[in-house]
Amino acid sequence: MAHPKYSMKQIAKTIDHSLLKPEMTRDEVKTGCEIAKKYDVASVCCKPADVKFCADLLKGTDVEIGTVVGFPHGSSTTETKVFETKQAVADGATEIDVVLNIGLLKSGLNQQVQDDIAAVVKAAGDKTVKVILENAYLTEAEKVTACKLTEAAGAHYVKTSTGYAPTGATIADIKLMRSSVSPKMKIKSAGGVRTLDALIEYLDAGISRSGATTTAIMIDEYVERFGRD
Amino acid sequence: MAHPKYSMKQIAKTIDHSLLKPEMTRDEVKTGCEIAKKYDVASVCCKPADVKFCADLLKGTDVEIGTVVGFPHGSSTTETKVFETKQAVADGATEIDVVLNIGLLKSGLNQQVQDDIAAVVKAAGDKTVKVILENAYLTEAEKVTACKLTEAAGAHYVKTSTGYAPTGATIADIKLMRSSVSPKMKIKSAGGVRTLDALIEYLDAGISRSGATTTAIMIDEYVERFGRD
Repeated sequence: MAHPKYSMKQIAKTIDHSLLKPEMTRDEVKTGCEIAKKYDVASVCCKPADVKFCADLLKGTDVEIGTVVGFPHGSSTTETKVFETKQAVADGATEIDVVLNIGLLKSGLNQQVQDDIAAVVKAAGDKTVKVILENAYLTEAEKVTACKLTEAAGAHYVKTSTGYAPTGATIADIKLMRSSVSPKMKIKSAGGVRTLDALIEYLDAGISRSGATTTAIMIDEYVERFGRD
Repeated sequence: MAHPKYSMKQIAKTIDHSLLKPEMTRDEVKTGCEIAKKYDVASVCCKPADVKFCADLLKGTDVEIGTVVGFPHGSSTTETKVFETKQAVADGATEIDVVLNIGLLKSGLNQQVQDDIAAVVKAAGDKTVKVILENAYLTEAEKVTACKLTEAAGAHYVKTSTGYAPTGATIADIKLMRSSVSPKMKIKSAGGVRTLDALIEYLDAGISRSGATTTAIMIDEYVERFGRD
């Protein structure tokens, strides 16, 4: 029996298949691209130094090439984030996940935080920009502020986490973020969404994308339980 | 009674006072700089976006301004690492701690790893370059290879860890690294050297520098046990 709300394609196109582990070899990145292609996910999210490599492997597919900027600490200068963004786009990236400057946010230097994001949005041109708040380090008020600064800076997504902080996505945070941005802004969960049931719960809460490493397991389970589209 | 081997000054000048936590506010960074100044440590190791701020605070002192490049994953492109290095130096950094490309090392792409480091060394000009191997992710053979590539690339230090991987410095790794580079190369420990006794043990094993957050505790203990120089 089909799933009442989400088709297999819709589930797959929610997934940014994560290839970010620092210790991943090129062979493992290649395998990751093959999984992304086989399951026709939304994108791979790869290391900046692997963008060209992944773009070559995924040429002609319907899988976007995502990468990260200022990752995972967000502590690079704005100029370095801009440089990294431009190079990522030149190398073939179509989606940019940038970490905001967490320290400046927690210092109350909101305009600097917004300007930092806006510079990356500008550098990305027509590409999608997702801004990672890294909720693990933020108070509830800081999460709300970060959402508002991200929207004001012109980015397309707010994203919960890098997956490399002490905590990752929570449903409570998705609800808070959803209520802190306008309806045109999208939300990406990351860090800890590892099962199909969890992914569906996050979709119900309002995400458009989720970072995942367990892509094959989740989509295989979908097919087993609900069949192919 | 004085310590038989290490003066207080020598201990202090071993310490790179770490101000790298992504969530550190500017007020906390300022306090960190005051500690670095009070205890006259070797350097602060600050976030790239804080280099100017720290350089202003430490002007006229004997404390070096260190920062990080491609930190903590080492997955940025060489071009981004070079850009980040040049900007750090322009902002006032005198020491650069760069993470090597862990994924390329583990893929056996040794020449690319060496070239990546060499490009940063060149961009740093006359500044000190420390190369973080991030031993947590490496086999014994990879640690040795990384030491040799670092020396061939012209860097000044091999450094054990970022402090943000599952494991940090070990005495066994210091011994392995010491035996894998020539005597002119220096070694920096980081991640987990938190007590005076540990720091002395690492000095005995051959380090020249250690990253630390417990700077005040360690030097206060030195004074209590061994007196001031």
